[in-house]
Amino acid sequence: MPHTFSRRMDGLRSSAIRNLLALTARPDVISLAGGLPDPDFIPRERIRKEAERALTDPASVQYGETTGLRRLRDVLAAREGARIGRLLNAGEVVVTHGSQQALSLLAQVLLDPGDVVVVEEPAYTGALQVFRAAQAAVQSVPLDRGGMNTAALQELLESGVRPTVVHTVSNFHNPRGVVLAADRRKHLAALADRYGFWVIEDDPYGELFFDAPAPRPVAAFSDRVIRLSSASKILAPALRVGWLHGDRRVCEAVELLKQGADLCGSSLTHQITAAMLSDEAWLALHLDMLRTRYGARSRALTAGISSAFGDSAALSDVQGGMFCWVEFTDDTIDTAALLRTAVEHGVAFVPGSAFGMGAHLGAALRLCYATCPEDVLAVACERLGDAYLAHAQS
Amino acid sequence: MPHTFSRRMDGLRSSAIRNLLALTARPDVISLAGGLPDPDFIPRERIRKEAERALTDPASVQYGETTGLRRLRDVLAAREGARIGRLLNAGEVVVTHGSQQALSLLAQVLLDPGDVVVVEEPAYTGALQVFRAAQAAVQSVPLDRGGMNTAALQELLESGVRPTVVHTVSNFHNPRGVVLAADRRKHLAALADRYGFWVIEDDPYGELFFDAPAPRPVAAFSDRVIRLSSASKILAPALRVGWLHGDRRVCEAVELLKQGADLCGSSLTHQITAAMLSDEAWLALHLDMLRTRYGARSRALTAGISSAFGDSAALSDVQGGMFCWVEFTDDTIDTAALLRTAVEHGVAFVPGSAFGMGAHLGAALRLCYATCPEDVLAVACERLGDAYLAHAQS
Repeated sequence: MPHTFSRRMDGLRSSAIRNLLALTARPDVISLAGGLPDPDFIPRERIRKEAERALTDPASVQYGETTGLRRLRDVLAAREGARIGRLLNAGEVVVTHGSQQALSLLAQVLLDPGDVVVVEEPAYTGALQVFRAAQAAVQSVPLDRGGMNTAALQELLESGVRPTVVHTVSNFHNPRGVVLAADRRKHLAALADRYGFWVIEDDPYGELFFDAPAPRPVAAFSDRVIRLSSASKILAPALRVGWLHGDRRVCEAVELLKQGADLCGSSLTHQITAAMLSDEAWLALHLDMLRTRYGARSRALTAGISSAFGDSAALSDVQGGMFCWVEFTDDTIDTAALLRTAVEHGVAFVPGSAFGMGAHLGAALRLCYATCPEDVLAVACERLGDAYLAHAQS
Repeated sequence: MPHTFSRRMDGLRSSAIRNLLALTARPDVISLAGGLPDPDFIPRERIRKEAERALTDPASVQYGETTGLRRLRDVLAAREGARIGRLLNAGEVVVTHGSQQALSLLAQVLLDPGDVVVVEEPAYTGALQVFRAAQAAVQSVPLDRGGMNTAALQELLESGVRPTVVHTVSNFHNPRGVVLAADRRKHLAALADRYGFWVIEDDPYGELFFDAPAPRPVAAFSDRVIRLSSASKILAPALRVGWLHGDRRVCEAVELLKQGADLCGSSLTHQITAAMLSDEAWLALHLDMLRTRYGARSRALTAGISSAFGDSAALSDVQGGMFCWVEFTDDTIDTAALLRTAVEHGVAFVPGSAFGMGAHLGAALRLCYATCPEDVLAVACERLGDAYLAHAQS
């Protein structure tokens, strides 16, 4: 065989989470391993109505602009502008095929092989995949209860490391569940200005707060922040609508690359999304429903884990999003090994090591509470407790 | 400004066609510059019904498999398998966000910077963009009435050039309008086997034949062919459904890269597309309608051009697809300059130079007849004739 694949394929592995989802797709297993919104909370009837309305317009089935339907970009510019406290216009927004595409295009626009990227640890696995495919030199800074440890980032910078990109999931972190503290947001922005790196502020979960919104975005404090978000967690993944906003030259470069990547998004799902996001009264009620229901589930999960493990596990203080991070105080526990026993007991999760760059995350695991009702979450916690005991005794 | 963009952005320019579309988007200009299907031929009512039906299923709004909805891959495997004359299964098919994404992912999977890619000249501009973004060393072989000149490719190979990829638009070429001859298909496949390169057989137009189907695909003759096609030209661009099939290891590598590129396609538009493609009776009637109507338009255009230019222009023998290629016998004509005069006369086209790698295409132009009815095409040809005279006298 004379041919091998490109070098970018060398370091690429299938997402551990994806492979696990296949493993745990058994009807008798309660899976807390995924990261899916509950389909029952997705407004299918409204999507149906908006699809019907959109399809009266021939433009809804045609090719569209590479940067996305103008009306959708206008809505997004208004919403994101309100968040960062300045007027944005449609030319500063690019609609992408989910925010994952925004991340992937940005990596291609900004990074040459060998360029340094700093991620949080534990990290969003989809970001690790993208940066590995870009053949970047990925380094990490630790994440704690206040989100990315920006003092650690500053030390890294002062030691001479010069990242091109720093990636952060600022709100309701996947997998760690935490929120980047307000003072750290300003600190991160100031470091970006001082050292000239780009911050990718990846925020698919910000709207899913349970009590109070997260602090103002990092993008409010520096022009060197490209902010990413998505309709997948608040409306529907199948719309495949994500977006980025920020520096206009970056937007233009992303547009140029997106022409070759896929020409454009779906005019149909862009019209549907624009209609739903611009109906402010409906959207407010819909988001309230999501916040209430996901909030109740997060409390059911954390109560169940506390009841099953007591002091032998520490939980993230979940205030929004879809994930809870559990760290066993016995750090000899190997959650990758525990997973096998857990699946036998009818429950699945993602081992902490899946999110790691090398730090010891082997005694941690990620649970997604978004897809199961409270009573099922309670059962899942009991099963996990039983699996833990069985594993410890084996 | 400490930061510049990645090296792959250096050679990247906005598609000349895209920029022209902006220039010609005036209501008084008849644009033959685009490459869009006629929205009136897109089955919007059927799409509406299938959207409604799909949305009764919660899975239609959720994340889906990275390689695409299983039911859609089954339909595609059956259809493509029938074309190449062997049984395909769903594991040999990846659904992409239009066939442009298939091309882009393949380039990333197969190519390192500096790897040689051979394209046809004139070439599909979307392919040139992708290969430039991959920082490939792009070479070309000429295209004539029988499609890619595979004897010229053989000479190139015998001279020591070792491409990793050879790209061909085998059916109803964009922009040249021609079909790759049957014996050249076998020749190209044999060269791929002998020299160990991958053929990307890019076929978005194959279903749009006017009288008889094109010869069997190149993929029928070698396992080193990755075949691409799309629902954009036969159903609707806004479904954003394209696909590739071929070598299973290539499919797996594409899947791996697609996880990071955009996680998955739209479960909703995959369901809609699967339903429409698997309704064979309806699809046969729909394709007949497209073939009849686009065929009538192609004849109206070629008659109009012949009437306007007589012996001073040579036309491609259009037997399908959406494009006609016009070469002026006076090869001092510069169609890029002619375009300005043409727009003043109320008609637009794409100058041949937009499709070139360096060969002299300046006296040629591409016309798309797909989007205008016959009477409008007749007016467009008259205007083009007037513009040509005015330009020659200026």
